Amino acid sequence: MTDLTMSPPVSLVSPKGFHATGVHAGLKRKRKDLALLVCEQLASAAAVYTTNQFQAAPIQVTKQTLQASNGKIRAVLVNSGNANACTGDQGLTDAYAMRAKAAAHLGIEADEVAIASTGVIGQLLPMDTLLAGIELLTPEPDAAQAGAFAEAILTTDTGVKTTGVRYADGDTFVTVAGVAKGSGMIHPNMATMLGFVTTDAVIAPELLHVALKQSVDASFNNITVDGDSSTNDMVLVMASGASDTEEIKAGTDAYHQFTKALTDVCTDLAKQIARDGEGATTLIEVNVVGAKTDETARIIAKQVVGSSLVKTAVYGKDANWGRIIAAVGATKEPIDVGRVDIQIGSQLVLSKSVPVWFDETLASAEMGQDVVAIRIDLNDGTGTGSAYGCDLTYDYVKINASYRT
Amino acid sequence: MTDLTMSPPVSLVSPKGFHATGVHAGLKRKRKDLALLVCEQLASAAAVYTTNQFQAAPIQVTKQTLQASNGKIRAVLVNSGNANACTGDQGLTDAYAMRAKAAAHLGIEADEVAIASTGVIGQLLPMDTLLAGIELLTPEPDAAQAGAFAEAILTTDTGVKTTGVRYADGDTFVTVAGVAKGSGMIHPNMATMLGFVTTDAVIAPELLHVALKQSVDASFNNITVDGDSSTNDMVLVMASGASDTEEIKAGTDAYHQFTKALTDVCTDLAKQIARDGEGATTLIEVNVVGAKTDETARIIAKQVVGSSLVKTAVYGKDANWGRIIAAVGATKEPIDVGRVDIQIGSQLVLSKSVPVWFDETLASAEMGQDVVAIRIDLNDGTGTGSAYGCDLTYDYVKINASYRT
Repeated sequence: MTDLTMSPPVSLVSPKGFHATGVHAGLKRKRKDLALLVCEQLASAAAVYTTNQFQAAPIQVTKQTLQASNGKIRAVLVNSGNANACTGDQGLTDAYAMRAKAAAHLGIEADEVAIASTGVIGQLLPMDTLLAGIELLTPEPDAAQAGAFAEAILTTDTGVKTTGVRYADGDTFVTVAGVAKGSGMIHPNMATMLGFVTTDAVIAPELLHVALKQSVDASFNNITVDGDSSTNDMVLVMASGASDTEEIKAGTDAYHQFTKALTDVCTDLAKQIARDGEGATTLIEVNVVGAKTDETARIIAKQVVGSSLVKTAVYGKDANWGRIIAAVGATKEPIDVGRVDIQIGSQLVLSKSVPVWFDETLASAEMGQDVVAIRIDLNDGTGTGSAYGCDLTYDYVKINASYRT
Repeated sequence: MTDLTMSPPVSLVSPKGFHATGVHAGLKRKRKDLALLVCEQLASAAAVYTTNQFQAAPIQVTKQTLQASNGKIRAVLVNSGNANACTGDQGLTDAYAMRAKAAAHLGIEADEVAIASTGVIGQLLPMDTLLAGIELLTPEPDAAQAGAFAEAILTTDTGVKTTGVRYADGDTFVTVAGVAKGSGMIHPNMATMLGFVTTDAVIAPELLHVALKQSVDASFNNITVDGDSSTNDMVLVMASGASDTEEIKAGTDAYHQFTKALTDVCTDLAKQIARDGEGATTLIEVNVVGAKTDETARIIAKQVVGSSLVKTAVYGKDANWGRIIAAVGATKEPIDVGRVDIQIGSQLVLSKSVPVWFDETLASAEMGQDVVAIRIDLNDGTGTGSAYGCDLTYDYVKINASYRT
């Protein structure tokens, strides 16, 4: 993740035109729980949402907002501590009220404000606390306040997740920055995961949506912590257009350059989320090569990184390739069962589907590092795909057995 | 599970014509690891196997055996401690050698012997130990030896899993008995799970296969422990025909009666397996009603019972219906998102997708019992389906982080 950090570090307000802040409003006991991001002008915006059939009220409201505004918004308000999900009509009313209050506070239109919530499901928002909290929000264009935003969106996360990248477009620079939250319930197709990306690129909302979808498919949709998926996930990007570069058009070099930067930001955030899976001690990175298609490679990578037995083996620093091969075979994807190679860290452990001698001590030591790389060669084509996850630990059970109590 | 026990208890050798035994051959350090079941005459046999693409050598050999013998066999030999999976050509040679040795020991044909293995993947069988062990096997028609069989097939199981049922067919009785092993890696479509069923019903192999498939779909295929699936699973049934009843023909009352008994046996074994999931403290039983179809109900039930967050919540005695609804919505099955009722134990916790007041203390107390029942009414049709699983505990992580070492 260090490959994306810069000096001075890029924050959510590094792209020109953005202000941010985060405060403690009282939805959580002590930690910050309310965050606001504002753009100085109308920004192009695009978002992708959870595929869960139960979509929380804020998701419904933000979808409606982006439609009503044709993808041109000024701000996004986020609360943590309460997901406003499964809260029926009252929840929807509350979500609209939260949006209206933020708009009034900023002196802008209601449909220029996106909202997001994360936290416990099925409890009504404490509206008095929340609405009073909104009045405390004074977004600033400084990195410390961007840090406060990143903090205020967290739930069981062990730390903030931020990243950014800058690239030259002609004589000037375009910056893309992002923050995210998410640790449990992380799964392909997004789950209890929020991501907010800012950029000063000049791009229309429709094309921004295409770029975002492509970036999310290559990043957030390839992480899994525990296979569950949530009611509240969203990745939202706002483009201020303040970089003074040419407008990015589809199919151009500028588009590819921008999409690469956006994908880099999303991938870095996705890995930070996977690494911070509840109770996790290690990032697991599974790379599948030699598949019939990229799709097959991606599905197998996800199956392996999502296997509870693989996850516990990694926690136990046990180079148990048997569980890896079992996970590969559990998919219905086309494979040649006699030709699979598996490498854990630096050690080839399976060759042509038969175990080979390897240094178990070294393999075990490597599995104690910050990233455990598993490489699977199906020797059956040219398709490749990656997925990211984390180990399954005592602490995962502990955190999730006592989340509400 | 008590509803199927009888006095005197039914064992694998209660159906007429069967002998069994189990010994310590030395594949495991101390516990029994080699088991043999023999029928006095050629029995009708049928089996279903893991859907994992990597099928262990014994699975391949038993498939070939049942084909070659047209479903007429005399014996099944099972070892635990070593799965003989991912062992290449040598593994297949060893599996055939193990079959040949058992046949010679019993004085029968090689293709009258089915085999099964369970345990660590990717290590060659210690053939000297195994072949010497086979000579120690002296099957007897007594319950104690049937118990030894049930013991010898275990791996991380905390106890034997046996059941049986007897029903009247005219003036006489038909008995169906079963044993199983399995605790980790248990998932729909069977996984590291072995089941052996004996009966003295008179039935042809083809029809026995139809009945077995139907029974397994309604039982073993609806349990899940950790979503992984193994290379070695098999459920095999042998019918001695020694009950002196009429031959069971398709579509008759006798067939339905037999299939019900077989399904009862399989369901009881499946629940025992789910209850004994690695580290589990509780059986979770999810019943979905009011679905558009039975298939939808079954898929949703499995998704809920397989959710790591639901499983940890049950371990924490936390009536966290939010995780249940999130799991319901994570499927792509047709549901009306505004009409879902959820009941945990005796407590209705969600009505029409909105939380209702319930007694959290009582709900928590009920979740500490031996079986936690979750009932989901989709209010959207007449389809019903059930799935069985267990909670996710510290001990699951402990067992699986240190299985090999």
